[in-house]
Amino acid sequence: MSDKTKFGPAKGMRDWLPKETLLRQKLIRLIEHHYQLYGFQPIDTPALENIEVLQGKGGGENEKLMFKILKRGEDLEKAKESGDFSDMGLRFDLTVPLARYYANHSNDLPKPFRCSHIGPVWRADRPQKGRYREFYQCDIDIIGGASDAYEVELLLATDRVLKELNVGKFKIRISDKRLLSDLLIGMGVEGTKVAGVALALDKLDKQPVDQVWKEIELLGHSLEVLNKVDGFLKNALNRQLDQAHFKIGEAEKLWLKIDSIRQRVHAVNPDANVVFDPLLVRGFDYYTGPVFEINVEDKDFTFSIGGGGRYDGLIEKLGGPKNTPAVGISLGFERILLILAEKNKAAAQALSSTVYVANNGQLERDILALAESLRSHGIQVEACLENKKIGQQLESAQKNGIEFAVTKFTPGSKTFTVRKLSTRQDLEMTVVDLLKAVKELEKT
Amino acid sequence: MSDKTKFGPAKGMRDWLPKETLLRQKLIRLIEHHYQLYGFQPIDTPALENIEVLQGKGGGENEKLMFKILKRGEDLEKAKESGDFSDMGLRFDLTVPLARYYANHSNDLPKPFRCSHIGPVWRADRPQKGRYREFYQCDIDIIGGASDAYEVELLLATDRVLKELNVGKFKIRISDKRLLSDLLIGMGVEGTKVAGVALALDKLDKQPVDQVWKEIELLGHSLEVLNKVDGFLKNALNRQLDQAHFKIGEAEKLWLKIDSIRQRVHAVNPDANVVFDPLLVRGFDYYTGPVFEINVEDKDFTFSIGGGGRYDGLIEKLGGPKNTPAVGISLGFERILLILAEKNKAAAQALSSTVYVANNGQLERDILALAESLRSHGIQVEACLENKKIGQQLESAQKNGIEFAVTKFTPGSKTFTVRKLSTRQDLEMTVVDLLKAVKELEKT
Repeated sequence: MSDKTKFGPAKGMRDWLPKETLLRQKLIRLIEHHYQLYGFQPIDTPALENIEVLQGKGGGENEKLMFKILKRGEDLEKAKESGDFSDMGLRFDLTVPLARYYANHSNDLPKPFRCSHIGPVWRADRPQKGRYREFYQCDIDIIGGASDAYEVELLLATDRVLKELNVGKFKIRISDKRLLSDLLIGMGVEGTKVAGVALALDKLDKQPVDQVWKEIELLGHSLEVLNKVDGFLKNALNRQLDQAHFKIGEAEKLWLKIDSIRQRVHAVNPDANVVFDPLLVRGFDYYTGPVFEINVEDKDFTFSIGGGGRYDGLIEKLGGPKNTPAVGISLGFERILLILAEKNKAAAQALSSTVYVANNGQLERDILALAESLRSHGIQVEACLENKKIGQQLESAQKNGIEFAVTKFTPGSKTFTVRKLSTRQDLEMTVVDLLKAVKELEKT
Repeated sequence: MSDKTKFGPAKGMRDWLPKETLLRQKLIRLIEHHYQLYGFQPIDTPALENIEVLQGKGGGENEKLMFKILKRGEDLEKAKESGDFSDMGLRFDLTVPLARYYANHSNDLPKPFRCSHIGPVWRADRPQKGRYREFYQCDIDIIGGASDAYEVELLLATDRVLKELNVGKFKIRISDKRLLSDLLIGMGVEGTKVAGVALALDKLDKQPVDQVWKEIELLGHSLEVLNKVDGFLKNALNRQLDQAHFKIGEAEKLWLKIDSIRQRVHAVNPDANVVFDPLLVRGFDYYTGPVFEINVEDKDFTFSIGGGGRYDGLIEKLGGPKNTPAVGISLGFERILLILAEKNKAAAQALSSTVYVANNGQLERDILALAESLRSHGIQVEACLENKKIGQQLESAQKNGIEFAVTKFTPGSKTFTVRKLSTRQDLEMTVVDLLKAVKELEKT
């Protein structure tokens, strides 16, 4: 076993160095802060759930990727005969635990209940770039409200948060889960082939149109049907669809509803990056109406950074109150972080605002007393308490990204000598001067 | 299966309602903030570790309580023959993962490395009041520094954090892991009985002295030894020990070292709640020198809320660089929370600073535009988008702890009518007035 394997985190999981941890915390707090402005209250649930809660709830592929907990003690002995080895599992998303949570607490919660849930989930997936076995999701949900005004609210809040995060150009695509199949049936696609066509169209963000089209043709359709689908696809890709294109079967009603949601979002915020996309496909069985998917538009990134939809049946299916409507959007935190990290490579190397107090032969108690006094002004301080050469101390402080080091001081005096490590300039400063310099540094 | 079991969280685990989540977040951020002032940088590691990392590392009882992850796919099939069902485990503390982390990243980390690690750990323990199967720990550690000046730093930082948390009266007891047994051997206790006496003395915070003393007597000692131990115990309990009492065998050197640490803490902060306690016993094998334990002194709570010590051998044992000294303190977050929750029952019922925008027949777009404008000033807003009677709306807002509701507004006007729900008073306000009122509320 190599040291890399022996001391590395488990497969598909990650350690976080201090700068990475600080960046993650900062972004999570920013997301939480803005969700709170929209009335979404934070909640939390355990990492582990009883296995009955997690199994058979429409989680689809994700459920198959669940990490299960081995039974313990006597139960494990019995399991060796029954073959039923597990009594709990790690949550693979935040939606299934939320439904259980709502079932458990609905009497104590406001109606509708707006909540945000941010935390890690685990999936035994094959790790690859941007895909991990432990990753954070950021969910907002509104439970107990049937009005599509809640879709409008979710879209406004999500647009705001993504802009505050500064992820660059993005698009929140919206449609209705039933719309695409209604359209395809209206164009004459045979019922058994509708899912296949939808599956092919879902690959448009990863594959060239030609390839998607070949997959559709291979399913075998009449020339007339192919022509209709082709015409529709071209119009959709060129964003040249209007109400006239939806006068097919049941589709028109759905189109009117989705277009109304979009219009009402833009009535409040004309700059909201929300677009209608009839080609949108969302995989989960539990969606029952409007669906959303968020894509970044960047030459380096084409992937989805979140999605969601209305799931009116799920809370009841998970044992919650009957007829509980619900709608939510989940952001993929790791992918957002990946984008921001690429965009801000320079920022990631920013100087640390920690102040170093060098040991220049003073007494430990005097060094620590100065450190305490700086801390009481809100300055982060790292003091050197070992007898090392001063040159070595400053070199190692600089290597750790520190900019300011107190190099000389007299106990009781109001000023001290501070070296700016990047320029080797020595300055005589008071605590207030140093605080100002640190605040200035934090801004850049 | 009752609904309580069916929809409840897994045994020994907990759901968090919004107010509880907010309180937990606030306290964790306060702890982090103050640790950062002391130069402890936040890090994070995965919840899961390879099983080899967690097993056989001196975790003692905690290791036995590990939740293990069931192997998957082919590996699981093979396991049914080998009986080796698990390849990973949930971390049961933050020390073992930290040692693995340091081994993995030591080249990228400063020396000494001061870090704080706050997160959940899991133990398959028998749940009871204040003891859960998922709970947070807050650790600070200094790795790579052999000087006992680092003990001084850890103690100063911990004293500061506990005072900022306002946990009430507490005591950080310090001793050396080897001191008590050296003393007992010096008093003539037979080598095979030393551990038994220490085990009995460790129960002094939970049992009356008489009972502890009986347990010591039962081990069988000569009258002379019993008299010496009794005399020492009485002096220790009455805090009447001075250097003269430690002139026994190897004990004096250890006493001098611990007393020097205590003196140096008090030289910087005379109010630090740090006391020397030769009766202190810490269970883990991996401690190698000074040890700490933190107790609250409250009629309702007598339990330990944290502890730690120097563990110079552990990093190397876990595969890290040879001869890596390390020292750390861990706070038990759930117990601290329990104390604060009991102390602040009133505060927990504080009014929410969210502002309610009632639906008084206005257009959705106008309601949402007002909400957006309030949010842009940093006010948390919950808007009513459904057609309910205004009385019902305000009643449900008040039930949810909301104090301010906008009940009337004219689109485009700079003022609007705000009802103070607790007094039913109507006020004409601008955004700035409302912001002030909300800030005032947050202070109380």
